[in-house]
Formats: sequence, C-alpha cells, structure tokens
Amino acid sequence: MRTFEARVEGVFVADDPSTFVTRGVPQIQVELGGIPGDRHYGLLRPADSRQHFYPSGTLIANRRQISIVSIEECARIAQHMGLPEIRPEWLGANLAVSGFPNLTLLPQGARLLFPDGAGLISEGENLPCIGPGNVIAGIHGDPGLAPAFVRAAQKLRGIVCSVEREGQITANGSVQIVIP
Amino acid sequence: MRTFEARVEGVFVADDPSTFVTRGVPQIQVELGGIPGDRHYGLLRPADSRQHFYPSGTLIANRRQISIVSIEECARIAQHMGLPEIRPEWLGANLAVSGFPNLTLLPQGARLLFPDGAGLISEGENLPCIGPGNVIAGIHGDPGLAPAFVRAAQKLRGIVCSVEREGQITANGSVQIVIP
Repeated sequence: MRTFEARVEGVFVADDPSTFVTRGVPQIQVELGGIPGDRHYGLLRPADSRQHFYPSGTLIANRRQISIVSIEECARIAQHMGLPEIRPEWLGANLAVSGFPNLTLLPQGARLLFPDGAGLISEGENLPCIGPGNVIAGIHGDPGLAPAFVRAAQKLRGIVCSVEREGQITANGSVQIVIP
Repeated sequence: MRTFEARVEGVFVADDPSTFVTRGVPQIQVELGGIPGDRHYGLLRPADSRQHFYPSGTLIANRRQISIVSIEECARIAQHMGLPEIRPEWLGANLAVSGFPNLTLLPQGARLLFPDGAGLISEGENLPCIGPGNVIAGIHGDPGLAPAFVRAAQKLRGIVCSVEREGQITANGSVQIVIP
C-alpha cells in the first residue's frame, strides 16, 4: 500500500440544470449517491455509450458521481492548447487537487481520504469528450478548440469517483491518496 | 475490450444467520444492495480490516455484496489440500462459474453480464481468510485444514462483486465476462 498527501485547491458543484459547468463553493457534503444538488447525484444513472454493454438508458449503479482534476494536469492541457489556463469548472470538476501531478493515472480502486472522514473510490480515468471542449471554444470564440481539447486532454482529464464513506470535503484542505 | 462466455453452474444464498455457508437455489434476484435476504446484502457495511484506512465499524459503501468462485479453481484448491472436493457453499460463494478458469485474476472493473440483463462489477480478488478453512476443518474433523486452506486458496478463492444492473441470475445459465 502506498500513501500520498495532496491538497484540495477547490470544491465545486454543478447545480445549474442548464450546464455541466461547475461553480466553486467553500465545502461539499458527500453522500452515498454523490453530492446532493449536483447533476451527477444519484445511486442510479442511465447507461450511456461508456457502458455500451447495457441497453442505452437502462438504470445502472452510478459510479460517475464525482469528478476530480489536478491543477498540474489542467496546466498541461492549457499548454498543449496554447491557452493561458484551463479552469476546473469548465471541465465540470467537483474537486481540484494539487501535489499529485499524475492524477489521471491513479488506478481504479485507489482511495481519496479527507480529514473529516469522507472517503472516495477512484473509478478510473475520465475519458475526454467534446462537452468541455465546446465550453472552451465558446469562451474563446474559436470552434477549433473543441476537438483540440479532446486531443490535448488525453490521460490528463482526471478521474471519476464514487463515495465510499459519507462526510464533508473542504476547499483548501488536505487529501490522503491511498493506492492499495 | 475482451469478452468471454462462461457458465453459471450454481447460485447460492447465505440466508441462515448462524453461518456464512451458502445453500443452492434455482435463481437469485440481485438489487443495487446485493441479494435480498443474504447476509452480505446492503448498500452500506461496516468497515473491517480489509478497509483499515477507515475506523473499524464505520459505515462504508458495500462493495462485497456477491462472491463468485470458479469450479476449476475450487478443484485446484482441493488438489492442493489433498481433498476430494471444495464446495462453493463452504466458501460462502453466491455464484459458481465454469469455463473461465482463472476467475480470481479477473481485473477490478470487469463486468459479468447475465442473459436476463443483470450486471455485476468485479471488485477484485477475495482474499482467503480462516472462516472457510474452519468450515472445511470441521467437516473433515482435521483442525490443520483451516490454515492449510488459507495457503492453498491464494489467488484461487474467486472474486467479490457489486451489482451494477438489477435483475435475475439463474443456475445452469450463461454469463458473459467483459474486460473493458
């Protein structure tokens, strides 16, 4: 078992039904279904193309409750795209961490443990899709940035997690990353 | 993605509160919390030594809902122990499959899909502990078989799963094993 210490730079929710873009908040409460009020909250979610072995739309266990990016990886995506920054909110991230640069490579089953007692399980890499690319293209008024994001964000777009132990996660706090 | 076809030789429940030993049934219904009536049913379970990074007994997401063994691996454990057989029930298995001999090596995140639509996610290897060893020792009246089981069952004791899609699993049916 290996343990690393990292920092929670920000926590965010997607509580505007019109967009997956998140907004920063001081802290989030996590429950077994995710973050109440967030668009990805729920014990169940409809299967989509990522779970193509189920008929589209059938209800399956929600393992994509919480999305996490690393500040260092966001900077590398920005560099690849020739942009000054990529904000976690644009990617719909719920957490942004620093001090663990290769977050996207964290294996499935790794744990993220927070001082309050909350615990998340990594469900693996969050594959880049066009959605955040469209947001970035819109902000910069450059349609070419949408497909460019998908290319630039390979292996850098962070992970999705589900909640293992309920609790609170605070911005500007610490997180222990455990690889069993 | 790789896909394999295997056979469900039996399905079992642990519905006697006095023991983890299971009994064969014609079919089981699986829900988001596991198998209703089974001792491992629940959305939450108390953390134990396997999740030592949480205080013992705190409630965490139940990822050990359903245990699966392979008939071939049970035969190899029996061979290692010099016994005529190791029955899935003695190990508290809920499913016994054949035709996929190295089940225990199936990676975390692999899917088991059943004809009815039910789907399970592998949560990884079920580490051998002394409990089933004690059962086997009791049956044969030989206390030495308890620690012998723990040694003999390394990398052969099967996997634990949680339910991804609810449905029914039938004895003598088929199962599709998908490694994403």
